[in-house]
Amino acid sequence: MEPRHFEMELQSLKNRLLGMGALVEERVHLAMQALMERRIEAAEQIIAGDAEVNDLQIEIDDRCLKLLALQNPMASDLRLITAAMKINADLERIGDQAVNIAENAVKVSAAAPLRPIIDLPRMAEIAEAMTRDSLDAFVRRDANLAREILARDDEVDQLKDQIFRVLLTHMMADPGTIERALGLILVSRNLERIADHATNIAEDVIFVVEAKDVRHHHEEREVQS
Amino acid sequence: MEPRHFEMELQSLKNRLLGMGALVEERVHLAMQALMERRIEAAEQIIAGDAEVNDLQIEIDDRCLKLLALQNPMASDLRLITAAMKINADLERIGDQAVNIAENAVKVSAAAPLRPIIDLPRMAEIAEAMTRDSLDAFVRRDANLAREILARDDEVDQLKDQIFRVLLTHMMADPGTIERALGLILVSRNLERIADHATNIAEDVIFVVEAKDVRHHHEEREVQS
Repeated sequence: MEPRHFEMELQSLKNRLLGMGALVEERVHLAMQALMERRIEAAEQIIAGDAEVNDLQIEIDDRCLKLLALQNPMASDLRLITAAMKINADLERIGDQAVNIAENAVKVSAAAPLRPIIDLPRMAEIAEAMTRDSLDAFVRRDANLAREILARDDEVDQLKDQIFRVLLTHMMADPGTIERALGLILVSRNLERIADHATNIAEDVIFVVEAKDVRHHHEEREVQS
Repeated sequence: MEPRHFEMELQSLKNRLLGMGALVEERVHLAMQALMERRIEAAEQIIAGDAEVNDLQIEIDDRCLKLLALQNPMASDLRLITAAMKINADLERIGDQAVNIAENAVKVSAAAPLRPIIDLPRMAEIAEAMTRDSLDAFVRRDANLAREILARDDEVDQLKDQIFRVLLTHMMADPGTIERALGLILVSRNLERIADHATNIAEDVIFVVEAKDVRHHHEEREVQS
């Protein structure tokens, strides 16, 4: 492959990853909307639509393998392409979480509404922005933006803990809400996993840009339970 | 690199991955033991010991990049090495789940014991065996074993649902158990994630061996909520 052609293929790979990112972010957003507006049909559509994400993952993985095979890439391109394969896997799993949220939405919507879910949309907003920004950071090779994303993961963890405490109190005060509150706690864990994946992507970006492994070295990020 | 040297390096990479697998499996096992025996100190040791897993991940990733860089590998070696990078990431995240289980063990152990946790050890046993067997399948290039692992993921999901129902009933009957029961539900989700990672590894193995992408095509595996 000519160097110029190789560059074009790399650009095209980045565009596909951006497309994959936009797709899974939208699906998370729609799943949260279905949850908040209690629309079971909309949630079921999300559940049914996962195949598009899976097909895109396979296509992007295939592009990466071809790029690695056709030409012996330089060290920096090698890091870029192997990072793209990892990012692709993280995006596909964010797509899985959209399905999980939609499944919880179906269960939660069957019962009477529960008030104290006020912070879930905020948590979703941060997780979606983290996903979007981690891909921006990848395409623009922006390690500073990637570092900001690592910091935002702590905010997600705090929201997760806060939501847990509020819903726990609610369950104990009124056992009739246990099942619904549990469903919402599980949604908060789904959102936490999305933020985890975005964090993984941000770490890969820093590795690509700075050829330095930041995984497990940024300021004492706690593993989430 | 000479072909023979390259083969030795591949063998050494496989051995490191087996070592990583044994390490995270042991950590999951010890975390579950701490949970079941209510030993807070043992759980805290697991939480403190995550660095070893992280260091090993970085070392293995580095080996993979070097193998990709030093010699333009053939298609089958290319698939093997990129799969090793993905498997490495899944193993590290299994290690994260050991920490999460240990954190939940600390919380749960602070209160009086709760009886109906009978199926958690069984679930852990399956998840640990899936992890171990997925790596065996990788090293032995055994696609049949990998396919068996995909089937076992359904069993894990059934146990997860069963544990959820039992604990939910318990919480509703006796709201005093809500906090502890919730902790155990979260452990069951940690175990589910471990089985998910093992399933990802098994899918990578089938891809390496058969050069065919089985992800998203095996018998209607449900995404777990």
